[in-house]
Amino acid sequence: MNKKIVFFLILVILSAVSIAMLGAGLLSFCMDPFPVAVKLTVCALVLLALSGSGAILLRPQNEQDRKAGMREGFAIVGLSWLAATLIGLIPYMLTCGMSFSDAFFETASGFSTTGASVIDRNLVLSNGAVLQQGVESLPFGILFWRSLTQWLGGMGIVVLSLAILPLMNIGGQLLYNAEVSGIKSMESKIAPRIADAAKILWIVYVLMTLTQTLLLLCCGMDWFDALNHAMTTLATGGFSTKQTSIAYWNSPVIQWVMIVFMTLAGCNFALHFQFFRGNFLSYKKDEEFRFYIAVILITSALIAAALYFTEAGGVDVLGKTEYYKNPGDSIRAALFQVVSIITTTGFSTSDYNVWPSSACVIIFILMFISACGGSTSGGIKCVRILLLGKYAYSEIRRCLFPHQLQDIRINHIRCENSTIQKTIGFCAMFIMLVFLFALIVAFVTPGISLETAVTASVTALANVGPGFGEVGPAYSYSWMPAGTKVILGLEMLLGRLELYTMLVLLLPSFWRR
Amino acid sequence: MNKKIVFFLILVILSAVSIAMLGAGLLSFCMDPFPVAVKLTVCALVLLALSGSGAILLRPQNEQDRKAGMREGFAIVGLSWLAATLIGLIPYMLTCGMSFSDAFFETASGFSTTGASVIDRNLVLSNGAVLQQGVESLPFGILFWRSLTQWLGGMGIVVLSLAILPLMNIGGQLLYNAEVSGIKSMESKIAPRIADAAKILWIVYVLMTLTQTLLLLCCGMDWFDALNHAMTTLATGGFSTKQTSIAYWNSPVIQWVMIVFMTLAGCNFALHFQFFRGNFLSYKKDEEFRFYIAVILITSALIAAALYFTEAGGVDVLGKTEYYKNPGDSIRAALFQVVSIITTTGFSTSDYNVWPSSACVIIFILMFISACGGSTSGGIKCVRILLLGKYAYSEIRRCLFPHQLQDIRINHIRCENSTIQKTIGFCAMFIMLVFLFALIVAFVTPGISLETAVTASVTALANVGPGFGEVGPAYSYSWMPAGTKVILGLEMLLGRLELYTMLVLLLPSFWRR
Repeated sequence: MNKKIVFFLILVILSAVSIAMLGAGLLSFCMDPFPVAVKLTVCALVLLALSGSGAILLRPQNEQDRKAGMREGFAIVGLSWLAATLIGLIPYMLTCGMSFSDAFFETASGFSTTGASVIDRNLVLSNGAVLQQGVESLPFGILFWRSLTQWLGGMGIVVLSLAILPLMNIGGQLLYNAEVSGIKSMESKIAPRIADAAKILWIVYVLMTLTQTLLLLCCGMDWFDALNHAMTTLATGGFSTKQTSIAYWNSPVIQWVMIVFMTLAGCNFALHFQFFRGNFLSYKKDEEFRFYIAVILITSALIAAALYFTEAGGVDVLGKTEYYKNPGDSIRAALFQVVSIITTTGFSTSDYNVWPSSACVIIFILMFISACGGSTSGGIKCVRILLLGKYAYSEIRRCLFPHQLQDIRINHIRCENSTIQKTIGFCAMFIMLVFLFALIVAFVTPGISLETAVTASVTALANVGPGFGEVGPAYSYSWMPAGTKVILGLEMLLGRLELYTMLVLLLPSFWRR
Repeated sequence: MNKKIVFFLILVILSAVSIAMLGAGLLSFCMDPFPVAVKLTVCALVLLALSGSGAILLRPQNEQDRKAGMREGFAIVGLSWLAATLIGLIPYMLTCGMSFSDAFFETASGFSTTGASVIDRNLVLSNGAVLQQGVESLPFGILFWRSLTQWLGGMGIVVLSLAILPLMNIGGQLLYNAEVSGIKSMESKIAPRIADAAKILWIVYVLMTLTQTLLLLCCGMDWFDALNHAMTTLATGGFSTKQTSIAYWNSPVIQWVMIVFMTLAGCNFALHFQFFRGNFLSYKKDEEFRFYIAVILITSALIAAALYFTEAGGVDVLGKTEYYKNPGDSIRAALFQVVSIITTTGFSTSDYNVWPSSACVIIFILMFISACGGSTSGGIKCVRILLLGKYAYSEIRRCLFPHQLQDIRINHIRCENSTIQKTIGFCAMFIMLVFLFALIVAFVTPGISLETAVTASVTALANVGPGFGEVGPAYSYSWMPAGTKVILGLEMLLGRLELYTMLVLLLPSFWRR
């Protein structure tokens, strides 16, 4: 393996992360007490100096140095997320006094756009003190940095999944790029075209973030909350600047804005890309998009009905009992939660733990389905579920007509057998990893319930955030032992990188010679 | 479709079921009050007369009538289990006054060898009265019939999965027959050979049941309990003649006998078949068997450690608190529960609901794994899990060496791509159906918890019996609404017949012309 190029590119990524951290530091000067801002800025500058000078030292000098194949690709992708997490956690430890495991969890949750948080009303800091007021007690610079990790992670994953992973041919990834014809250029192995596509995707991402910020401002959020929430919505991350998340504002219009932008963030960014290039029908033509919207509408209708017709009320995250006696309220509450979970954002307006069990089972299933490929959401993804459904149907038919050819098509394009196999294999692998991590979590966390262990594992691997039981929307992860936090943090990164990118690094043969 | 042969063969199967019921009726004369015995016997005679005369009327007259293809095969298999359930439930309604849904659940649980039961200390009968003393209050004839449904169901499934399903090529079924070379004759499409193989399998099954009965007698059970438990163990069913299941005897030696025979019942019967033909190394040579034993030993060790080293004690099904302070007790409790769950038997000696969560997660995972193909156990089966694991590993390697051929072998035989695809597809289909049924159960059962809904669905589809939460070993299914009982009953039959056999009947094109 050409280790030089791997280190070089990771250091370049770390320099970019440090520059972003520097931005948070400068913002901190305007809003926070001076010592906090100084700490954050100095931390960013030191990291930038180290990673920048390292990158300059290791910069490729000749053709030989620039050579990078599949193996280097995996090392760069897998390790850069881990390295970004390891430097991104420093501000939490330095300025807030959080312990390593807490800071690691929070940063991994950020870069993986999961949105699970250890910051609670009773977080124990590394010096033994207890953080009392939750998220609102953190300095603005840290809150901004926290949202920024998600925003960067979200964009990173869009570029990765639309421009880089297809080249690596992971888990049926080729599938949802081959058919999005407008983005054909991205499939080419020629690096400049990847850079072009990445640039356009960045522009789309920035424009959407700014649009949402403006809309949230108009709905009555202040500019800081609006910007932070726009960043974490587009990244389908789910970090909030308030302990009670979106429930804090108790504003239907804010919730509707969030619903629209979460839904957009869950779409394949290649479709947005096409839309911006003038192909306004791109969404309608895409089978995955239609499936995604159908799942949202059907499950929201079912949950809204369950909320409206059962006597069970909801308790919002503020602890206030709410009843959905008004059809409009039921529909909005259901739609918000469905979109928040399917896009793996994880914002909450009420504690779905106390909703009727039919709603709970739907939410649990949505955690597995998740949104579209090529979006910022995690999880299995709609296109794989759609293919799985078509495969299951064809397999049932094959029992009856064993000699008939059963073509499986997505967007009118026939799927190769190898693609189908990779896709089903990905789903099965996902489930196996959920079980494996649930088992590890149960072993290292005394007293955890089966429900909590399993849903914490699902929600981490699918990058959702809240689960059920004691990791539900009304709880945080602060009560977990340090070991569990580190394990869940690693699971989030594993899920974020479509499993294989990280798993391949565990093969001994990967590192050999 | 040749409907005549379908009806004829189903009626032949129903006649056999009626003859078995007649046996229970005759036994009832020796042990029960006269009116009960008369009811049971008359019921059996009427059913025998009806099904027998129907079969004689519809018997194939010529070559044309005898013609049966794939389609007829599916109809016969799928409908015969359903038809047997529908006539098998009559004794429960007639002699005990159980409602239709209760009787359907109990009989489906019997023929599918699930072992979940609605019979509890407070079962509401169809006339509004309440059954007070649980299983022990049922007439002996009914108890025997209940065990008999499992014994027949278990044998039915062995013959089906080793001799008939391979011909239908369902969900990678061919896999675990192709490699068991001694049983090659069963793969032939020539009917007499199937009949031969089936006869030998029957003899093995009967001999093993008798052996276990004798051993249980020696351990202090009376002959009736010994016979019933032997029948439900070999079928990996799990119905007991005592409300508190095996905990009733509180006898380590009985538990050890059960552990051995449950393990044997979870083996591929083709291996027993070879053993009886003198090939004593058959077990050792089989990769699935080695995997099965390894899973049992590893998970039992983990659970035993969890029981021994945590302060959490167990509560046995009698409500008595038990602590596993003795290593021997921990190991036996763990081994019994692991074997009972992995073989999908479902006997219990203690309430694992209150075990440490690490043990709970393992038990939950074991429900999916289940025992060997060609055994009486339900679920996904070890061979498929083994293949899935090998596939996942090869897929990770393929990321690194995309052009290297990654052969997947089981018992040194290379698996075809189509077999791999069918196998992974089966696992994915299983998970999808678990979710689908959990959703339906949650919708029709007000107040059910997420944990209960999901585990009830898993345990029904995998034919285990007990789940977690309110369907745990200390509970019965009697509290569920009638609709839920019917749905779970149907799910058990669906799981029993390896999914596709029932699903294909739902295709409109199956019934067309």
